[in-house]
Amino acid sequence: MTEIELVRWIRARGKGIGDDCAVLPGGLIVTTDMFIEDVHFRRGEPPALLGHRALARGLSDIAAMGGVPRWCLLSLAVPEWAKPAWVKRFFTGLLDLAKRYRTQLVGGDTSHAKQATADIVVIGSDGGLLRSGARPGDGIYVSGVLGGVPKKFEPRIALGRFLRNRATACMDITDGLSLDLHRLCTESRAAAVLDRPLPVAHGATLEKALHWGEDYELLFTAREEPPRSHRGVPITRVGTIVRGPAGRIEFFGRPHTPRGYDHLGSHA
Amino acid sequence: MTEIELVRWIRARGKGIGDDCAVLPGGLIVTTDMFIEDVHFRRGEPPALLGHRALARGLSDIAAMGGVPRWCLLSLAVPEWAKPAWVKRFFTGLLDLAKRYRTQLVGGDTSHAKQATADIVVIGSDGGLLRSGARPGDGIYVSGVLGGVPKKFEPRIALGRFLRNRATACMDITDGLSLDLHRLCTESRAAAVLDRPLPVAHGATLEKALHWGEDYELLFTAREEPPRSHRGVPITRVGTIVRGPAGRIEFFGRPHTPRGYDHLGSHA
Repeated sequence: MTEIELVRWIRARGKGIGDDCAVLPGGLIVTTDMFIEDVHFRRGEPPALLGHRALARGLSDIAAMGGVPRWCLLSLAVPEWAKPAWVKRFFTGLLDLAKRYRTQLVGGDTSHAKQATADIVVIGSDGGLLRSGARPGDGIYVSGVLGGVPKKFEPRIALGRFLRNRATACMDITDGLSLDLHRLCTESRAAAVLDRPLPVAHGATLEKALHWGEDYELLFTAREEPPRSHRGVPITRVGTIVRGPAGRIEFFGRPHTPRGYDHLGSHA
Repeated sequence: MTEIELVRWIRARGKGIGDDCAVLPGGLIVTTDMFIEDVHFRRGEPPALLGHRALARGLSDIAAMGGVPRWCLLSLAVPEWAKPAWVKRFFTGLLDLAKRYRTQLVGGDTSHAKQATADIVVIGSDGGLLRSGARPGDGIYVSGVLGGVPKKFEPRIALGRFLRNRATACMDITDGLSLDLHRLCTESRAAAVLDRPLPVAHGATLEKALHWGEDYELLFTAREEPPRSHRGVPITRVGTIVRGPAGRIEFFGRPHTPRGYDHLGSHA
């Protein structure tokens, strides 16, 4: 059994896995995201910034579903080097962001580990924008710019709300446009053509804009042309959904092999 | 800032923290529990058993609130030594238990880490049995026997449902009867007298029955005497809630200092 087969095996047994959040009856959406030292961050980074990012990753999943974040829970395992002052600053960064998005910390768990390890759970309402709704003819769009290294990224909650009934499919870019578009197309059983200039971040390469895994911008498809920006966040059309083998991507006329950061496969 | 002050600081900022689950408007209850190699388990243990225990810990929190488990999400970070076959067996153990309790795996996250790390989220409904409802005169009860080492413990879901409208307060014993009763009394702003023989597991000492942290039995208080067992699970009265300083425990006529496993304090 390869790692890819394993992921398929797991997914086949868990209903709803494949979107950014699980959708519960009643319209609640739930997401969980791990944030691990030496995998997602380094020990020396400012703890308040890490707390911000830990929660922002979860909020980004809620944004990708077009939902409203409501509650969060934090599981945090700290190593010996992380003193109480570090933990307090981590929580301060997390709670500052939670407050801005009216997301209430309602619980969690604490433990210890060799690597600092956070797992954030965010529960939202009114989500329902899926990865699987893209249809041939839909435009493909991304928010913001790609390939940059925003240390303190802002989850696209407002844009997600705007897209809730306007986009046909949506997800956040966490493993690179290339791999994430491949996933969106696979879920939608369609193919994609990327034939327009990407919004490359200042100083970044096209390569990085295609494959960088920490953008947290929204990737979405829509039948109607959206505005060129929403509340100051640029929206750029990068291509079109087409008929074809599920998940196939063509980049400026040539077949494109999706790659990017595969979390389970990366240590294989 | 000491660790205890830190925990107080965190709790003061997160509403609802202090019970086994967070209670959301609408009656849903949510719990999250970490399960970490070298903290909660050892590498050599059978992976199916570990998957069982990872979920059973979360189900036990739902039981402690008197709720019905509905959905779960699993975050799993695996080290290099954990091959796909290990991960598959871990999931098999988890899913077997999930099926028995009609709990659907709806999502999660995967990553890698030096220590195998699982964080289980369980969402239930119809909970609402809190730690804070114990009143002077209530009897104090425990389910099962204490101080044993049940490798594959059964979450007390049926008993929790039975107690939902019969107990005044309830929690599961995860850090030892001593420390957990202290917590229940603190939340209830009452004191406790332990003056009856404890149901000590075969081969265990009284000391272990008081302080062992992995029983996952229910500790509850009730005004009316419950039956001596429920569906084959013994119920034993161990003492009485009394007026007194919040959290104070008297053990056979002498003041008792709570101790047990304090997750955040244990590495200080």
